[in-house]
Amino acid sequence: MPQLTVALDMMGGDYGPSITVPAAAQALLLLPELNLLLFGLEDELAPWLSRFQLDCHPRVQVQFCSQQVGNDHKAAYALRHLTDSSMRNALDALASGRASACVSSGNTGALMAMAIKTLSTLPGVDRPALITRLPQVGGGYALLLDVGANISCSAHHLVQFALMGEQAAQHTLDIAQPRIALLNVGAEASKGNEAVREAGLRLAELSGLHYSGYIEGNELFSGRADVIVCDGFVGNVALKTSEGVAKLLLGQRIKSGFLSKILTFWLKKRLSHLNPDQYNGASLIGLRASVVKSHGSAGSPAFLNAILQAISEIEHDLPASIAHRFDTAPQDSHAR
Amino acid sequence: MPQLTVALDMMGGDYGPSITVPAAAQALLLLPELNLLLFGLEDELAPWLSRFQLDCHPRVQVQFCSQQVGNDHKAAYALRHLTDSSMRNALDALASGRASACVSSGNTGALMAMAIKTLSTLPGVDRPALITRLPQVGGGYALLLDVGANISCSAHHLVQFALMGEQAAQHTLDIAQPRIALLNVGAEASKGNEAVREAGLRLAELSGLHYSGYIEGNELFSGRADVIVCDGFVGNVALKTSEGVAKLLLGQRIKSGFLSKILTFWLKKRLSHLNPDQYNGASLIGLRASVVKSHGSAGSPAFLNAILQAISEIEHDLPASIAHRFDTAPQDSHAR
Repeated sequence: MPQLTVALDMMGGDYGPSITVPAAAQALLLLPELNLLLFGLEDELAPWLSRFQLDCHPRVQVQFCSQQVGNDHKAAYALRHLTDSSMRNALDALASGRASACVSSGNTGALMAMAIKTLSTLPGVDRPALITRLPQVGGGYALLLDVGANISCSAHHLVQFALMGEQAAQHTLDIAQPRIALLNVGAEASKGNEAVREAGLRLAELSGLHYSGYIEGNELFSGRADVIVCDGFVGNVALKTSEGVAKLLLGQRIKSGFLSKILTFWLKKRLSHLNPDQYNGASLIGLRASVVKSHGSAGSPAFLNAILQAISEIEHDLPASIAHRFDTAPQDSHAR
Repeated sequence: MPQLTVALDMMGGDYGPSITVPAAAQALLLLPELNLLLFGLEDELAPWLSRFQLDCHPRVQVQFCSQQVGNDHKAAYALRHLTDSSMRNALDALASGRASACVSSGNTGALMAMAIKTLSTLPGVDRPALITRLPQVGGGYALLLDVGANISCSAHHLVQFALMGEQAAQHTLDIAQPRIALLNVGAEASKGNEAVREAGLRLAELSGLHYSGYIEGNELFSGRADVIVCDGFVGNVALKTSEGVAKLLLGQRIKSGFLSKILTFWLKKRLSHLNPDQYNGASLIGLRASVVKSHGSAGSPAFLNAILQAISEIEHDLPASIAHRFDTAPQDSHAR
């Protein structure tokens, strides 16, 4: 196997190094071929590195930075002024080829803006999209995009997301001919807003793409589609709503007692496939390299999952597949 | 108590009279003061009425119609050509004062268009909104609007929804000073699309309204807000997504065996407050009378719940409260 190096922004998310460092240590234990580049503020990061003996680990390089992107920083501000942030340095490492993928649990808007600036989108791709996996009722996963990188989308953007999602499903879920659906408020052709209806018409015309029409929110987990396309506002709300319901059920208080403890254990086991920790890690796709966005509230196992997802994307070389699809396959020929 | 008469569209939804007739019969049994006006196609409705002995019930009037609104009928078509449909006749009964509320599980777009035409919106209200209850983690309910009547909304519409939702929470949930939130993709002021951001600024300026900022999809059931405002596309997807997750969990297959049966019973009981059947019935508010939209896939108990909700709205005279709020209270003064 060629050298496998992942750049990690250790500062993002709600908990910073207290969860990113244990996850990094675990990833190094699991994967003997893995190298990590770690970026963070010295004051906060160093104590944790020392505690987990990553300060002198042979497969770890640490680069301390002077800045950190906050959740309330606007993307434009972060892009212009936070050029020595851990997020920006991790992306720069990717752009310069020192790493093959990057993971951050920081501010999505800033990550998107910095990733476009440092990595550029692939030829033909207008906007990267944030894509995530959804567990399905019969087992397996579907992909949902966009889940928050693009708040307003035209029909043209939705069509591009469909093409990128198709490649992601083929190469990361191993589905030869993924069924592509548009998330809408009804199944009938007249339903939805103009962008969704127009995207539906264009997708139906695209040869070589398996477009299966509209699906509604209650079908996100039904196994009816392999790739579900929507704008980033709707996708973000849908994803977070499903997480909210799952957490509500997992977190319900139960009376004490032996039987209740057994029941709670059993319930948590049954619901575990809906727990965001199990499928943490949305990828920003359509860029020249793999960038994985971990959930801001991710715990250590969830951040580890995001690292493993980044490694899987390196192995599948998803950017190359998307570039090939946009370069050679029949595409949306309409004006934007 | 004054005369209580509800008009029922017996044809809408996925199952028609096979679920609406048993629900009507049950409502009449529960409420001795209730009168019903029933509208439907004779061929389909009459056998069910006879089976449940509603064809000669002293508190039932039946009016057979020649048309039915289908799920795939466009609103404009229904409005122009389906003037003898069960939906239209039920709304006409409301408009003429023969009934005080109307329930239909038919096509939302057609119901919205016909309701505006027959009933008109209240003075100052531009668009009616579809509002529904969401169960909350600590018990009780929050209200979510719009859940599908208005696919694209301006800031002005969102502000009006907030005012209508405030009245609904005060008068149907008995919350003196409801906390109003906007559904968004993040908590920070810079998040979201322009309509949501502008609505946030306007709501913060409205005196006498308890605006509590943005909430995200994972907080819909958290008890953080009493009224959650969004456009109809986002609200519809959020509502259906939560139903999808709840149904996924309720419907999961479990190995046979005695212990499993006990566990399944226990799980269903725990999840029952998230089952759409328990809180079926979205209301179209902002009109001169109460129109309740039952879920298209509602079963008989769920349709009964929608009838009970209509009765509750008659008792609280929600249209009068909304009219009063729009007439006298400080409102959004910006241009549309």
